[in-house]
Amino acid sequence: MTCRILRGDSVEQSVKNELRSIVGKDYFLDSPNELYVYSYDATPLYQAMPDAVLIPSGVEEVAAIMKVANKNRIPIVSRGSGTNLCGGTVPVEGGIVLNMNRLNAFKEIDQENLTATFGPGVITADVHRAVEAVGLFYPPDPGSMRISTMGGNVAECAGGMRGLKYGVTKDYIMGLEAVLPGGEVLRVGGKNAKDVAGYDVTKLLVGSEGTLAVITEITAKLLPLPAAKQTMVAYYNDLTAAARTVQRIISAKIIPATLEFLDQATMVVVEDFAKIGLPLDMKAMLIIEQDGSEWQVEQDMARIADICRSEGATEVRTAQTAEEGASLMAARRSALSALARVKPTTILEDATVPRANLAAMVDQVEVIAKKYNLQICTFGHAGDGNLHPTCLTDERDQEEIHRVEQAFEEIFHAAIKLGGTITGEHGVGMAKAGYLDLKVGPVGMELMKRIKEAFDPHGIMNPGKIFAKSARRRVVVQTNGCGCKHEHAHN
Amino acid sequence: MTCRILRGDSVEQSVKNELRSIVGKDYFLDSPNELYVYSYDATPLYQAMPDAVLIPSGVEEVAAIMKVANKNRIPIVSRGSGTNLCGGTVPVEGGIVLNMNRLNAFKEIDQENLTATFGPGVITADVHRAVEAVGLFYPPDPGSMRISTMGGNVAECAGGMRGLKYGVTKDYIMGLEAVLPGGEVLRVGGKNAKDVAGYDVTKLLVGSEGTLAVITEITAKLLPLPAAKQTMVAYYNDLTAAARTVQRIISAKIIPATLEFLDQATMVVVEDFAKIGLPLDMKAMLIIEQDGSEWQVEQDMARIADICRSEGATEVRTAQTAEEGASLMAARRSALSALARVKPTTILEDATVPRANLAAMVDQVEVIAKKYNLQICTFGHAGDGNLHPTCLTDERDQEEIHRVEQAFEEIFHAAIKLGGTITGEHGVGMAKAGYLDLKVGPVGMELMKRIKEAFDPHGIMNPGKIFAKSARRRVVVQTNGCGCKHEHAHN
Repeated sequence: MTCRILRGDSVEQSVKNELRSIVGKDYFLDSPNELYVYSYDATPLYQAMPDAVLIPSGVEEVAAIMKVANKNRIPIVSRGSGTNLCGGTVPVEGGIVLNMNRLNAFKEIDQENLTATFGPGVITADVHRAVEAVGLFYPPDPGSMRISTMGGNVAECAGGMRGLKYGVTKDYIMGLEAVLPGGEVLRVGGKNAKDVAGYDVTKLLVGSEGTLAVITEITAKLLPLPAAKQTMVAYYNDLTAAARTVQRIISAKIIPATLEFLDQATMVVVEDFAKIGLPLDMKAMLIIEQDGSEWQVEQDMARIADICRSEGATEVRTAQTAEEGASLMAARRSALSALARVKPTTILEDATVPRANLAAMVDQVEVIAKKYNLQICTFGHAGDGNLHPTCLTDERDQEEIHRVEQAFEEIFHAAIKLGGTITGEHGVGMAKAGYLDLKVGPVGMELMKRIKEAFDPHGIMNPGKIFAKSARRRVVVQTNGCGCKHEHAHN
Repeated sequence: MTCRILRGDSVEQSVKNELRSIVGKDYFLDSPNELYVYSYDATPLYQAMPDAVLIPSGVEEVAAIMKVANKNRIPIVSRGSGTNLCGGTVPVEGGIVLNMNRLNAFKEIDQENLTATFGPGVITADVHRAVEAVGLFYPPDPGSMRISTMGGNVAECAGGMRGLKYGVTKDYIMGLEAVLPGGEVLRVGGKNAKDVAGYDVTKLLVGSEGTLAVITEITAKLLPLPAAKQTMVAYYNDLTAAARTVQRIISAKIIPATLEFLDQATMVVVEDFAKIGLPLDMKAMLIIEQDGSEWQVEQDMARIADICRSEGATEVRTAQTAEEGASLMAARRSALSALARVKPTTILEDATVPRANLAAMVDQVEVIAKKYNLQICTFGHAGDGNLHPTCLTDERDQEEIHRVEQAFEEIFHAAIKLGGTITGEHGVGMAKAGYLDLKVGPVGMELMKRIKEAFDPHGIMNPGKIFAKSARRRVVVQTNGCGCKHEHAHN
């Protein structure tokens, strides 16, 4: 296999000149240092060099670039902040990385239709701020929201902590402008609360991971901002009791905005990082948030506290102020950063199961971690059955990395057996391309490939993502003597 | 053009025998009388004879039928109760009608995961009844819910009166089993609250109008049943004031469960039909329903009543009992039946606009009705901007029908100009196939055709629907001397 890190010369100079003339020389990058910056994303273990990086100013330039790329069969990898966790924006077949961050105009908040329209380069948290300033609400809140872009959120169908009550990015995207591989500009959906004019291409593009089109404008649905919010923590000296509490809350027909789970191992590293006084002898904690009218929040939180206690929580504490609530949520949000400090390599997965199977899945992860003698911390969106088993390891230790691979493969199989899926919110990308057939089967795989071809007959859109080139096994990228990274398919 | 009503002989006898052996002779129909029953649906003006009607017992039989149909290039039109309003289940190219009503097992209500799983033949209202009996809630409530099947609801992405707050069918379909044209059984989605494993084929199938696959099992998301509900009516002697009230309510960040609009002409026929004492000198009425906790409902309804009054409602009345509320909602639900009594032919459209443009759209419909000298009553889901301008006419009066065509064409153009769509909840089918490009443009049309081909390379799935064979104009079916119906494309 080629050593991707040394790549960067497979696009002819004349084509580079053509591309440079589209965006202007300041927005065309092809020096080794600049290319290196775009050779990786937030996902550990994956890296590959692009041939050029283009930073277009708007849809017209994107369309012009796509025409050149399609004609010359050059891969196109569009990206924002690169915060994805599936290797989704690593240019594994080289080609052009499209940095979409200049398309960052916040075009409109429509308070009558409850929509917001903006470019893909807008930061997620800036959407929150802008709409909350006028009493509106955009619920999806992925962990990376302070740096992630909305284009990336749409491409990956980002989730977050409010998924249980409010759903994910897909549930809020009403309209898109996107450029197809041939350079045609597509406009789908809009501001209509109901619209059944043809196939729902809008929802199909959400979560398509840059493999179908380049998103150039987004129209999102907004909700009224809830009047009140309360945060509660419950600690357990029994992991199963915590999982059972989650089931009891839902079965009691209460849908909290947030229902997060941290196991003891995660609590320990979070406490070390955030110093908020977590009781480190406890086996698990739940962080529960409810929003709505003040009356409703009071009612729900009282009932939830009762359920926590009746399921054996050793302590149930309601945040007394908004600040205290925010600091608890921030502690949860810091879990990944905190874990990342412990060992050189942090591999975060997001196997997901129907929420009733949460306890069984948590058990399975523990068993598998022991079997392969690995340190796996588990936290995540318990209310969604969306767990983040996180392995603290070191990519230089090839023997351990091999065990990590085997452990995650078992975790994916366990999730599927429990009616779950290989990825709840991180996407398939490269990291899980070898496992997609576990979830969708050969009929689903074949159909998805045909859908891909319908959009992208020459296969230039983010090649190597979602669909694995070879068979099932995970692609491992290993450090070798030349100081760069190779790919090896285990078969 | 062929006279479809006389059709029924284009499938060879040997193939018919093969099909009969799959379902058994009791579930294979091909006598003229039986075929006639499946030659039309709830949409006026469209009729065509199938070659055979098959009533399969389950997914295996559906798969076997599809293999035969695909091999022999026989059109497949799957249907439930045929309540659609876009000619969606008229077998316009003959072939096989698949009556899916035997797949009507209600398989499960999962109270921990808040899902229900059932066959496509289950009646919508039976889903409501079953889940409400255990305190759960399936919001979509199309007008035809007492007879429509869930398979049809999924195929058309049915809407209803609770769309404003709760969304449409698409928002509740989590998993599907479907048979592809080649007979492969596809399983997509499931019970996971979050799932980004590959393209969202589940949402793509919802609203695909039987043109991509035959749905054989449905898993739907449920919500907790709201504790309380209240219904209110407000009467206006000014149509614009009613529309402005809708905007004011949303801008005040209140999202009622239901926000329906009836114009004076509709009120008159509804009163004649339902005798509930509507004030017939009023120009418009709103029916508003809110659900949630008792406290929240009280709060919201008080604020809504204030807004109605401040916008000039002459009377605002809150239903004193659940029965009174239900009778008001029933009156609204009876609108179509009531209108259908007035003249021989009732043509109901569902042009939809962003809700802030509701008043402008209502005005446009009035202007267009006057211009073409037609009786058009308008009612609909005001909160969704989803109007049902309904023309009372007589299909035997060809001159008037021609004016109806022209008027609806202008209505579609007006909706598009206001940022709207040609169909909010009824689907494209045959009735709006000639107008789809107004909404999605040539790029969208071409892409949708390629998606169709990806699923159905031989074009056997509900041919003649969504995509018009010829150019833009509406297809009019006229009665002629032979007592059957022909199609004429106006170009």
